[in-house]
Amino acid sequence: MHQHDGPLARLRQGHETLVLDLLRRHGPLTRAGLGTHTGLSRTTLYDIVGGLVTAGAVVTAPPEATARRRGRPVETLSLNPAAGLAIGIDFARRAVHVAAVNVAHEVVGSASEQHPAGLSWDRRIALARRLVGTLAGGSLRLDPVTGIGAGLVGPVGLPALGGPGPAADPGPWEAAGTAEAVRDRLAEAFGVPVHVDNNTRLAALAESVWGAATGSRDVLYLRLSHGVGGGLVVGGALHGGAHGLSGELGHITVDPAGGPCDCGGRGCLETVASVGAVLDAYRAAGGRAADIAGFTAAARDGDAVAAGVLRAVGSQVGGVLAAVCNAVGPGVVVVGGELAEAGDLLLGPVRETLSARVLPLARSLLDLRRAALGEYGGALGGIALVLHASPLLAHYPARPEPGPRPQERPGARLQDHQPHDRTEPEESP
Amino acid sequence: MHQHDGPLARLRQGHETLVLDLLRRHGPLTRAGLGTHTGLSRTTLYDIVGGLVTAGAVVTAPPEATARRRGRPVETLSLNPAAGLAIGIDFARRAVHVAAVNVAHEVVGSASEQHPAGLSWDRRIALARRLVGTLAGGSLRLDPVTGIGAGLVGPVGLPALGGPGPAADPGPWEAAGTAEAVRDRLAEAFGVPVHVDNNTRLAALAESVWGAATGSRDVLYLRLSHGVGGGLVVGGALHGGAHGLSGELGHITVDPAGGPCDCGGRGCLETVASVGAVLDAYRAAGGRAADIAGFTAAARDGDAVAAGVLRAVGSQVGGVLAAVCNAVGPGVVVVGGELAEAGDLLLGPVRETLSARVLPLARSLLDLRRAALGEYGGALGGIALVLHASPLLAHYPARPEPGPRPQERPGARLQDHQPHDRTEPEESP
Repeated sequence: MHQHDGPLARLRQGHETLVLDLLRRHGPLTRAGLGTHTGLSRTTLYDIVGGLVTAGAVVTAPPEATARRRGRPVETLSLNPAAGLAIGIDFARRAVHVAAVNVAHEVVGSASEQHPAGLSWDRRIALARRLVGTLAGGSLRLDPVTGIGAGLVGPVGLPALGGPGPAADPGPWEAAGTAEAVRDRLAEAFGVPVHVDNNTRLAALAESVWGAATGSRDVLYLRLSHGVGGGLVVGGALHGGAHGLSGELGHITVDPAGGPCDCGGRGCLETVASVGAVLDAYRAAGGRAADIAGFTAAARDGDAVAAGVLRAVGSQVGGVLAAVCNAVGPGVVVVGGELAEAGDLLLGPVRETLSARVLPLARSLLDLRRAALGEYGGALGGIALVLHASPLLAHYPARPEPGPRPQERPGARLQDHQPHDRTEPEESP
Repeated sequence: MHQHDGPLARLRQGHETLVLDLLRRHGPLTRAGLGTHTGLSRTTLYDIVGGLVTAGAVVTAPPEATARRRGRPVETLSLNPAAGLAIGIDFARRAVHVAAVNVAHEVVGSASEQHPAGLSWDRRIALARRLVGTLAGGSLRLDPVTGIGAGLVGPVGLPALGGPGPAADPGPWEAAGTAEAVRDRLAEAFGVPVHVDNNTRLAALAESVWGAATGSRDVLYLRLSHGVGGGLVVGGALHGGAHGLSGELGHITVDPAGGPCDCGGRGCLETVASVGAVLDAYRAAGGRAADIAGFTAAARDGDAVAAGVLRAVGSQVGGVLAAVCNAVGPGVVVVGGELAEAGDLLLGPVRETLSARVLPLARSLLDLRRAALGEYGGALGGIALVLHASPLLAHYPARPEPGPRPQERPGARLQDHQPHDRTEPEESP
């Protein structure tokens, strides 16, 4: 997309956005009507509209009888309902999740498949293609797809690091540079523009657009899963940070003298609040659970040992969230991942420590919620990323705009993705 | 400014920005030239240009001989060099600082005056008016002033909190709601639009535009002064947070069992890293210094006790910065305030702990710098806030744009504001 970054391309894209936004808000309009509303010259407008018709984003409607003036038929323009599909793909550690929306932002379909850890990128991309092919009863055509937003595990946007030493070792993450390679491979496989980001950050974006934090423009999201990660939505947009390493809440130190972390650090939040760390702590205290679902079930059934573990973890989580809240001042804090299935047994202690350590002036403004989108968060976030980047689908507001009107959101279509009990561990981040 | 927030006003402002930006980049242009470059219709363009000429932002130049075509003189349009002044005012605890730039973003002048703590707002605003009157040798006219950006101590943007209880007690800060009242009073006193924000956050913005972090779009700023505060610049814009409480790095807990803080919390960074806390620690260890300047001078002269205090403080500061860096991923971290005058005696230990606790992948990307703008940071940040908000002065880039070109910055004119030794304590935040 780099060739689209120049000032003239931006100006043209601004004009396209203007036209598409008017058609979305007002419904069908004539070229003259578009001219009046946009202030664009006749030449510019015909050029822009011509491009949009060629791209399939806009269709010309047959002239209506009432629109004829002086006997000359006047063509109206409207959004092409068949155009503007956006696809989200989440490449989690051991599963691929896909979802798609149409130009009206209705979810056309979603699909998921588990796979063994360490599957090659060739096979993961082939799996994604196959899953996308199953959407909408197999009737999904790729040629009107506006873009794909893909979520990956690990850092995205980080420059490839050369040389020896710890900085060159990506540890448990995908190697730096993977994101760019995957983006290029996807673009080749699907033949459409592809945007990539970290899948936990995408889940944060999805929660802010369609999930627990709908309508809030400043959201802090924490995911407590096999790994611990997070994401920040700032002013309605996903915050990537200068080097693609934002949202790494799992690697904030909670105990400088604590145990080693997979990241190469010591005493990180992930060493005490990941699914593995929680199960270890539970078993060390005499508890018995085959997996995290068993653990949260035991906690909900009144197991005091499990509740004690959740209290200790919740306090550590609350301390980290308080530090970040003081720095960033989010409107809503969302906690997701398998551990959040424990509900208030976890969120109660989180809220208590968060409230105690956040700036007293901010206490009454705290808004802590459980994530709402479950395992499709990453894929839906990929769609949101496409909506941000594409004027063809960008109902998602530009910065100075107020939030989208509730009736424009596909919330009702997303109820299928509410969290539910699972027997299989979730795969990301 | 609320009446300027509608979609049509935004569209018009977008057109104005387009025209002004072209005149800034290309120099004088004819209306025909502007039409070609902007794609705006003749009607829209004449309307926009007419408004800009009436507002005094654009002037018509006499037709040049070479510009005549078919004997008809063609008027050219250019930016009015006399227009577009922006004024920054920092209302610190015991001083008022003012600065002004013209439409070319040259600093026209700056002035400062100390005053007793607790001076009434009437007198502080009168002092600000008098100081502004001294700028540019007293020749500054207020009628071309585009806007004023003012910095205040304490939260800005926080809804007024009612009811009893700790949340209603603003502690050492100005009461919630003060910012709005001061903004209205300033608008009345100066007769121009006024933008307000927290003065430490404004200093963060100024460092990102003209100071230590020039050119970076993601900046974390920490100020170690009589209070400890901070600010975040995200994607080139000042981050306010959902409730105006972002950047409160001084109230991140460093020791849950620590001493009480003025904010009502316990063990906050401010309880160990403020000027007062550092002097207390130094004196408790047997050191003797009349004030913070004496302390930093002693440290630089090889006083081992002072260096030990700075090491301990630096480690706590580094830990807090690491947590925020992991969450936010800034490109540059800037440390300012009187304690930063100790230079590497403080920044060395800060860097050491920051590097140890930041995500290992991010270590090689760390960029820690000492603040460059000194006591005028808040006032210059106020100017940057006006530049952001006003199309008349907005060379400061909109989000998708690259940073301003170095030669467009008034950096050379700001050298007077580099940090220098002071015998008087600084007044903010």
